[in-house]
Amino acid sequence: MKIQIVRDVLEANDQLADTIRTESHKSGLKLINIMSSPGSGKTSLLEKIIPELKKKGIRVAVIEGDITTTADAERIATLDIPVAQINTESFGGDCHLGAEVIMPALHQFELNELDLVIIENVGNLVCPAEFDTGSNYNFVVISTTEGEDKPLKYPLMFRVCDTTIINKTDLVPYLDMDINLLRENIRKIKPQMRIIETSAKTGQNIPEIVNHVQTLLKQ
Amino acid sequence: MKIQIVRDVLEANDQLADTIRTESHKSGLKLINIMSSPGSGKTSLLEKIIPELKKKGIRVAVIEGDITTTADAERIATLDIPVAQINTESFGGDCHLGAEVIMPALHQFELNELDLVIIENVGNLVCPAEFDTGSNYNFVVISTTEGEDKPLKYPLMFRVCDTTIINKTDLVPYLDMDINLLRENIRKIKPQMRIIETSAKTGQNIPEIVNHVQTLLKQ
Repeated sequence: MKIQIVRDVLEANDQLADTIRTESHKSGLKLINIMSSPGSGKTSLLEKIIPELKKKGIRVAVIEGDITTTADAERIATLDIPVAQINTESFGGDCHLGAEVIMPALHQFELNELDLVIIENVGNLVCPAEFDTGSNYNFVVISTTEGEDKPLKYPLMFRVCDTTIINKTDLVPYLDMDINLLRENIRKIKPQMRIIETSAKTGQNIPEIVNHVQTLLKQ
Repeated sequence: MKIQIVRDVLEANDQLADTIRTESHKSGLKLINIMSSPGSGKTSLLEKIIPELKKKGIRVAVIEGDITTTADAERIATLDIPVAQINTESFGGDCHLGAEVIMPALHQFELNELDLVIIENVGNLVCPAEFDTGSNYNFVVISTTEGEDKPLKYPLMFRVCDTTIINKTDLVPYLDMDINLLRENIRKIKPQMRIIETSAKTGQNIPEIVNHVQTLLKQ
């Protein structure tokens, strides 16, 4: 019985996610959903990437998901782009963004005037992986400080993502971690994963992420 | 209807958690539940703390919670203490440990021969906070690399915990973070929080954590 209920919720979510993809396709729009543990640096990365996307003429908006606070949305709003904040506290403190909250958030934007909507999901390496947001691409950000074993311990997250951004490479000299082992563990879960190493702090490989996003928009 | 179901699950969990506390009290045993984001260093901290607890004559066992893999349990088992592994994958990939999985894990131990069971919860700063494990005390570990804002963004976790361990203080010189602001944000959510700054790498304040645990066992 309990399993049946969970399945119904997931099925309803998947249907709504497909509707979102159909709608955004009609508007000539792509959605990228970014997921990670808390504190891996999603917002800091967006602060680096979005100005570069704008320079290339890409019209971008962001949906910010947090349980509570508008702190991240306020940081992104200073980049002078449309931002919608979802606080899942009103939905019982949900640990993820489902399609049912993405849909109304999307409708706050003028969709025909956008090329890309980036969804910054709730900081959580587990639950967001289970809920299709209606995105066209899923990115996971993993910080070097989280160690090499996370892809093996949270395989679903890495399985549902096409791109892994390894952030905070500037800290590697101060950590007991092997970035090549992290790459190997990612590829054990998803051999074809696109992996980009970066540092939001130093700006390493930010242009590579921007080019990657631009390529995805053309597909 | 949906809310009703969630409430029933939580109520059933809370009742079972109370039963666990009654049972462990009868066995003269305390339970500490440790929660955090993935990669904050829970296992590394346990590797430092447990040998010190053993030196003080405290008989300790560990319940390891992971979605998949037995990697952490294997690390802890080398400390020559009883370890039970819960893989939530068999329970639908659960993002937390509920009382219903703690109960059978506890029964794998000789409870009368233990003073302390440490539960290392699934790496997740959201869902584990919602589910009472039957523990007597809840600890949250937060890494300095996660930034200062996490207590404000994940308030329930900090509300349900009595102790916050700020880990990876050795990395502070390489981060743009203000540890005093992190402490302030923790106290905004829970003014009476016991906060201990530590580094599993350098061993800073490990004796303070050990003394704190010893004090809790006497209460």
